[in-house]
Amino acid sequence: MKITTPLSEKIGLRLPIIQAPMAGGPSTQELVAAVSAAGGLGSFGFAYMPPQEMQRQVAWVRAKTDRPFGVNVFVAELPGAIDAVSQRGALEAVAGYYAELGLPAPGPINPPYGPDLDVQLAAVEELRPRVFTTHFGSLPLEKVSSLQKLGILVGGSATCVAEAQRLESLGFDFVIAQGGEAGGHRGTYLRDPADALTGTLALTRLIVRAVKLPVVAAGGIMDGAGIAAVLALGAQAAQLGTAFLACPESGAPEVHKKMLLSSPEDETRITEKFSGRAARGLVNRFIKEMERAPSLAFPAQNAVTANLRAASAKAGKPDFVSMWAGQAAPLARALPATELVARLEAETIEAVRNLKGVLRES
Amino acid sequence: MKITTPLSEKIGLRLPIIQAPMAGGPSTQELVAAVSAAGGLGSFGFAYMPPQEMQRQVAWVRAKTDRPFGVNVFVAELPGAIDAVSQRGALEAVAGYYAELGLPAPGPINPPYGPDLDVQLAAVEELRPRVFTTHFGSLPLEKVSSLQKLGILVGGSATCVAEAQRLESLGFDFVIAQGGEAGGHRGTYLRDPADALTGTLALTRLIVRAVKLPVVAAGGIMDGAGIAAVLALGAQAAQLGTAFLACPESGAPEVHKKMLLSSPEDETRITEKFSGRAARGLVNRFIKEMERAPSLAFPAQNAVTANLRAASAKAGKPDFVSMWAGQAAPLARALPATELVARLEAETIEAVRNLKGVLRES
Repeated sequence: MKITTPLSEKIGLRLPIIQAPMAGGPSTQELVAAVSAAGGLGSFGFAYMPPQEMQRQVAWVRAKTDRPFGVNVFVAELPGAIDAVSQRGALEAVAGYYAELGLPAPGPINPPYGPDLDVQLAAVEELRPRVFTTHFGSLPLEKVSSLQKLGILVGGSATCVAEAQRLESLGFDFVIAQGGEAGGHRGTYLRDPADALTGTLALTRLIVRAVKLPVVAAGGIMDGAGIAAVLALGAQAAQLGTAFLACPESGAPEVHKKMLLSSPEDETRITEKFSGRAARGLVNRFIKEMERAPSLAFPAQNAVTANLRAASAKAGKPDFVSMWAGQAAPLARALPATELVARLEAETIEAVRNLKGVLRES
Repeated sequence: MKITTPLSEKIGLRLPIIQAPMAGGPSTQELVAAVSAAGGLGSFGFAYMPPQEMQRQVAWVRAKTDRPFGVNVFVAELPGAIDAVSQRGALEAVAGYYAELGLPAPGPINPPYGPDLDVQLAAVEELRPRVFTTHFGSLPLEKVSSLQKLGILVGGSATCVAEAQRLESLGFDFVIAQGGEAGGHRGTYLRDPADALTGTLALTRLIVRAVKLPVVAAGGIMDGAGIAAVLALGAQAAQLGTAFLACPESGAPEVHKKMLLSSPEDETRITEKFSGRAARGLVNRFIKEMERAPSLAFPAQNAVTANLRAASAKAGKPDFVSMWAGQAAPLARALPATELVARLEAETIEAVRNLKGVLRES
């Protein structure tokens, strides 16, 4: 038995299941290779990655499997130089935490705040992944078309109807409806992220009805029942991030995995204090205490918190780690990725069959 | 062909579709009777209703149909007398709006702020609807059991796992998972409503996995694809409010219906400025301008805004009307309730059958 949609066929997948690109650690080459080899779409989150490292990891995956995989980058505009007063405010806000961990406070935060987008895109063109997706925005029509000419399918995140329509007008191949449940960074780029938290069920249906592009649903999907649900909504694939976070192949810090697996309830919140941009994570001391503290624009704030996050993770202390997670985090499972994909497949088939059971001859 | 689940069978429904109780106008006797007669569960929102009026409306429905219907009340504790300073602040915040509409400002807001819950519950026991549901809380074990002894199935809203577990421990018959997409008042009673906005997809799945009770999913469900999706998640019925708001039988003000039908996007927001309690509605001038204004505790704030809402609605002006709506509001349809239920049924069957199509022999 095979689960298939036009989009999964087009990509060349055995399953309409996408492992979400999770930048900054979780989406390791091991995770990507395992998911792709198992029939889903493993995805790299190459947001902050230099081209050489992108090349190295892609080559590693290609040595393991000939199945398709995806590459995602952040396409947000980077801010200009940040004035000394703002910097001082943001650094003072975290100084006590650095002291608490016995770390030196970070020095001035200077540009460039992230890798050059053109350089990253050039690397993508060279690497020719089967799928390339953007987060935080779109791409010019010409760029979309030049990627497509290389055989790359181009997708992008949308958190409202207008963003999906923008992607459609730019010739994207598919759109990822990132529902409010989703963990990690909100892909919002045409609205205030606080006004773009439409739940996955509503958003998927709104976008399916508003555009002709194939829609991938993301946010709160953790098992086969969730996958079947979004397929029923008209999505052609489900993208799961948090579901893969606790896999042994995931590069998330151990304390992140531990907190994820022990959360009995949805205790996540949106914060922009880790990176400068709204993202959903497990509530911890940093998120609570920093709620009203000053911070820098994305991605400069990453530099303000980087050593703090790393040291906290290393010490096994959840207080200062950015533990990105979606609202259905309590359903995460610490299974090897291959086994998780197999279970997702079996559960989806079971959920589809069970659903058929609600129809009876009257 | 019939769509059936153990819960819909138990209630005695032809369809696992519940028209959400929408207090304060929309859930008229005409709407309730039409939905129930069509095979769904019509539901009264008797939140602010005196017992004699409850009796009158229930008798009206029973004269039209012998199918089951539901009754819902708010079970929130009412606040004590509110001090003059708070009152003055809340009244001053809206004084300009009253002046703008040429209305006298409201006088002091005195208790009682709502009908006595015991009196309402006594009326429910007398009326013996097939289904009784609570919003904003639970009921003592003895009360649940005395309602059940009368043949009434008792359900309650939950916006997080803990609330669902509380209802289960009190012997409720079913739980309504009210996802973050839902329009109108958040049923949250054990948490800060701002921390209980888990999306319908995630919340339904979390609650289905956490309790043994049958789960009804609510929030963002507007068509058969949405109904099929929540059934795939393991819900045993779908509760739709916004989907019924624009029906001719709905008692929502015309301007509310008009704004609903013309919204191209999810432009809803949570506000407590209309009633004193968090509720989701279409963004309008009142919601935007009152964001940081003082207001009274629920339901006293209702009295502060009542005449303003009524006059604005009467004038066909959306500015000061509480236009409750869920996040998938753009999918609302102005169809007679009987026809809407028939379409929901046909769409659900179609969605279930289409979903089966994703499975292929490999």
